[in-house]
Amino acid sequence: MRQLRTDLAMESIPPGNEGIPGVQVNHWETMGVNMTEVLIKTEGAARDLGKSPGRYITLECPAVRQRDLDARLAMSNLLGEEIARMLPAEGDAPVMVVGLGNRFVTPDSLGPRAVDRTLVTRHMFQELPEYADRRMRSVCAIAPGVLGVTGVETLEIVESLCASLHPRALLCVDSLSARSASRIGSAVQLTDAGIQPGSGVGNHRRCLTRDTLGVPVVAVGMPTVIYAATLARDAMETLCDAQSADSALDAVERELLEAELGDMIVTPREIDALICDAAGIIATGINRALQPELTEEEIAALMD
Amino acid sequence: MRQLRTDLAMESIPPGNEGIPGVQVNHWETMGVNMTEVLIKTEGAARDLGKSPGRYITLECPAVRQRDLDARLAMSNLLGEEIARMLPAEGDAPVMVVGLGNRFVTPDSLGPRAVDRTLVTRHMFQELPEYADRRMRSVCAIAPGVLGVTGVETLEIVESLCASLHPRALLCVDSLSARSASRIGSAVQLTDAGIQPGSGVGNHRRCLTRDTLGVPVVAVGMPTVIYAATLARDAMETLCDAQSADSALDAVERELLEAELGDMIVTPREIDALICDAAGIIATGINRALQPELTEEEIAALMD
Amino acid sequence: MRQLRTDLAMESIPPGNEGIPGVQVNHWETMGVNMTEVLIKTEGAARDLGKSPGRYITLECPAVRQRDLDARLAMSNLLGEEIARMLPAEGDAPVMVVGLGNRFVTPDSLGPRAVDRTLVTRHMFQELPEYADRRMRSVCAIAPGVLGVTGVETLEIVESLCASLHPRALLCVDSLSARSASRIGSAVQLTDAGIQPGSGVGNHRRCLTRDTLGVPVVAVGMPTVIYAATLARDAMETLCDAQSADSALDAVERELLEAELGDMIVTPREIDALICDAAGIIATGINRALQPELTEEEIAALMD
Amino acid sequence: MRQLRTDLAMESIPPGNEGIPGVQVNHWETMGVNMTEVLIKTEGAARDLGKSPGRYITLECPAVRQRDLDARLAMSNLLGEEIARMLPAEGDAPVMVVGLGNRFVTPDSLGPRAVDRTLVTRHMFQELPEYADRRMRSVCAIAPGVLGVTGVETLEIVESLCASLHPRALLCVDSLSARSASRIGSAVQLTDAGIQPGSGVGNHRRCLTRDTLGVPVVAVGMPTVIYAATLARDAMETLCDAQSADSALDAVERELLEAELGDMIVTPREIDALICDAAGIIATGINRALQPELTEEEIAALMD
Repeated sequence: MRQLRTDLAMESIPPGNEGIPGVQVNHWETMGVNMTEVLIKTEGAARDLGKSPGRYITLECPAVRQRDLDARLAMSNLLGEEIARMLPAEGDAPVMVVGLGNRFVTPDSLGPRAVDRTLVTRHMFQELPEYADRRMRSVCAIAPGVLGVTGVETLEIVESLCASLHPRALLCVDSLSARSASRIGSAVQLTDAGIQPGSGVGNHRRCLTRDTLGVPVVAVGMPTVIYAATLARDAMETLCDAQSADSALDAVERELLEAELGDMIVTPREIDALICDAAGIIATGINRALQPELTEEEIAALMD
Repeated sequence: MRQLRTDLAMESIPPGNEGIPGVQVNHWETMGVNMTEVLIKTEGAARDLGKSPGRYITLECPAVRQRDLDARLAMSNLLGEEIARMLPAEGDAPVMVVGLGNRFVTPDSLGPRAVDRTLVTRHMFQELPEYADRRMRSVCAIAPGVLGVTGVETLEIVESLCASLHPRALLCVDSLSARSASRIGSAVQLTDAGIQPGSGVGNHRRCLTRDTLGVPVVAVGMPTVIYAATLARDAMETLCDAQSADSALDAVERELLEAELGDMIVTPREIDALICDAAGIIATGINRALQPELTEEEIAALMD
Repeated sequence: MRQLRTDLAMESIPPGNEGIPGVQVNHWETMGVNMTEVLIKTEGAARDLGKSPGRYITLECPAVRQRDLDARLAMSNLLGEEIARMLPAEGDAPVMVVGLGNRFVTPDSLGPRAVDRTLVTRHMFQELPEYADRRMRSVCAIAPGVLGVTGVETLEIVESLCASLHPRALLCVDSLSARSASRIGSAVQLTDAGIQPGSGVGNHRRCLTRDTLGVPVVAVGMPTVIYAATLARDAMETLCDAQSADSALDAVERELLEAELGDMIVTPREIDALICDAAGIIATGINRALQPELTEEEIAALMD
Repeated sequence: MRQLRTDLAMESIPPGNEGIPGVQVNHWETMGVNMTEVLIKTEGAARDLGKSPGRYITLECPAVRQRDLDARLAMSNLLGEEIARMLPAEGDAPVMVVGLGNRFVTPDSLGPRAVDRTLVTRHMFQELPEYADRRMRSVCAIAPGVLGVTGVETLEIVESLCASLHPRALLCVDSLSARSASRIGSAVQLTDAGIQPGSGVGNHRRCLTRDTLGVPVVAVGMPTVIYAATLARDAMETLCDAQSADSALDAVERELLEAELGDMIVTPREIDALICDAAGIIATGINRALQPELTEEEIAALMD
């Protein structure tokens, strides 16, 4: 039984084995960004991959990790287009952006930091509806905090707010884990399958999905860490396959290694800058998607 | 008509004039802390003072501003006792601590920072009720953010959470304004009258009271600023009274001065350290009040 | 004797009295920015104004305080031009940018935060001189910290570094005090007179000037605070002049007010955002001045 | 040739092979803390271990990682005693505490953050020598920043300050790397061998030693990371030794893995809290060692 944790659907498919029943995978490239779409169509496929049924899109661009300004812009633009496509048709009800994770745990802080840079407008409609720009769409945004800090499940807070604010959709942002070091800080995953228990760097306990919340839930995140135990096991399997020695592997030894690594993560030394860039890319994409009639300059001026 | 803004009930009483009908004022001193209790008993008195009916207690200790460790401890202990006295009798439902204000606006960040240092326990009862220490009381804590950042009124968020979490009381923490420079960073006010519109450094739009929320609301705060226009007017009035020249004051000139000062505040240069100390004093008082059966050491160990 | 503290030379000139011997004042306007040049030419004039002899230029633009993007850009550009004009002719030795003040005291943190956003290049010449872009100029940058935090006078640290790094000029950045509320967050002062004792929000003890350091010292800063005692005295004097009652003012009463106000400052509630904007404007101006052959995009890419 | 990076001398000794010529290793235990002393006595031994000659003491206590308050206190006390023993005899000249690393790169920020919590006193002797407490020792402290941020080598800054301040010793604090996950956040190393090139999380380019600086240099640090390439190679070697398959290992494959991991680090998810605790433990130990005649309470009061 494999214990290779990743929040990316594209990494949960065994390599060289994309022909799983109930799963469809498409690749394309645009503006220097590699796009991968994984469609998980059946419950059986969902069980096999350990991911909920739905559509998962991954945008990858290694130059983003090198902090290339053009690459960041291309990612933001493409992400904005894909978010817009995945969200339900427009309406007057607000979109609620939810920043998941813990602001004070750097590798888990992407959600709250992206929310900090999201343009919120709902209050302008509430306060001075006659002055609110007709081209603006209603957006609100919260960072509910994590269970250990608030004593309240994220789902409980989000459910309460959905019940009173009646958003037309939820857009959740979270820090993700990956298997491949090359995707840390250089990929973004977008899905309509919501947020699953045990996913994210902060390990959510309960689902945030259309089923639990009654509104469409789109989730977007960037991998910021690899679990160290996953990295070690991956390294060992790579090695042992090469030697056809898999059967000789001492499972006990593996367990010991993984126990010692516990909740250790693998991440770039510059994790702070990575999170800052990722929050900027995702927030820019969100602002584009949620305010299609405002220009970049108008959004920047309203953000100040 | 006077425009002297202060969130402290004790400062809204004209000096030398404590015998207002419907208002009762008591002073005492304990452990080096000066205590003032203002009881506003009638709607008429409330209108006159610009404060809601209720009980207001102010603890003052100038040594706190000098960062004296013993003075801080005395304040925390007394505050804890007074909070415990003001809260309703114990029960199984949680107390919800609410940190008002904006974490990213230093003079307005006291609420969120006090919440960061509040011991939350509600999730321990939810997850492993059989292991939860019987001596613990259930506490949850949120910092809902401000309207301009979330697009949602604080009251809307708190109302939603009250409806789903059914707390037995709310304990709100906020940055306050004062009139006297000597009270900045050295006084704490506690009241059962809730939070009023226009109060606090962040200027709440709508009430958080027992009436609007259906549960008892206790509010605690420390003055962190004087509004510059209030300071200027106070200085001018002091001067002109002394000269019996009040009638000669040019109201237009006053208005100009106040307009120029706009939303400027008066605060110590060391505002960051002041907020940090205040958050510690208030959180310590809250933890004492809400966990009467735990020792200081147990609280410290659970906070880590 | 007047105790009206301001770090702006233009505010130290009595209003309506610009014809002081040894002082020359010029006003002009460009790109929506009001420019004021004060030349203090004699030791007598310096004594009268409480400012060292030299050239002081103030750039003012109220829209900067309203966070207008175009106004910020105009300020940065003009500031860059004036810094370039005030610095000595180019050479191979580095310009040393010095961020004065305390990073952890928000109103005093402008210097360190501007330094964080300054492009440093000296190490590129040291490490890989053959690969360093010929169009780059050598720049190093330090934030030496304040006396209470390091136990070392700023002048001692800067002197030591000058002795070993041999910069061709120093460019000091500091938080300033002003008298007029309208200049907080909306003006920048630039001078070749260096940094004087008692100036700045952090109150430097000893001079940073060409005399003490042996190299040209250019100082740039934005007013972030008014001292509360200055504001109160200004308000009182305005009032009393109007009533021709100056002589009747009780000096004792004034002293009491000022004593109570102590080190209180007047500042906008949004001091954090003001400092962030100011650091950006000043760092952009510095980068333009010190890297005249690089484009804005090249500077941005090198900063990452 | 092995590429297993660690800053801990005790981890550079091959396991089961402590009898290297020129190296002496001692173990003992006190107050629940495991102490290991490594003496590297010859240049040959230094070359073999990749560590400079000198004395290295490691204090280990797993309960520190679990944030146990008593364990933290025991570590601080023992560390204080060992620092005091390693520093030269007392004198009037100050001890200079140097916080190495980058404040804005969380895993590399231990040095600056420990310096923030170090009691500095040198300025009290300089300013009011007649009032300075005779029991205080002179201490100054700087966090010079890293090359990429200042454009100046750490050694250049420290050399300049040594030349002008004439400290009697340097006490450098740095974030370290380790090989064993069990030592991250739970061990402290202290050495009189100074700081070597390539050591620390920030990778210093040049030595800070008695030879380069002319004064005794004591270095103290806590491991905050494992280099991911070291972890992967360690995992592979463990595995292959067990299978006696070392010779079969494809070196090319190893290189590829290590290249992909690049500068990735392995660290606990709660890296922010770990750094905060570590800075507290080390600063407390430093304050004890440098102020032997002050009580804990006096130090706390002076720190405020």
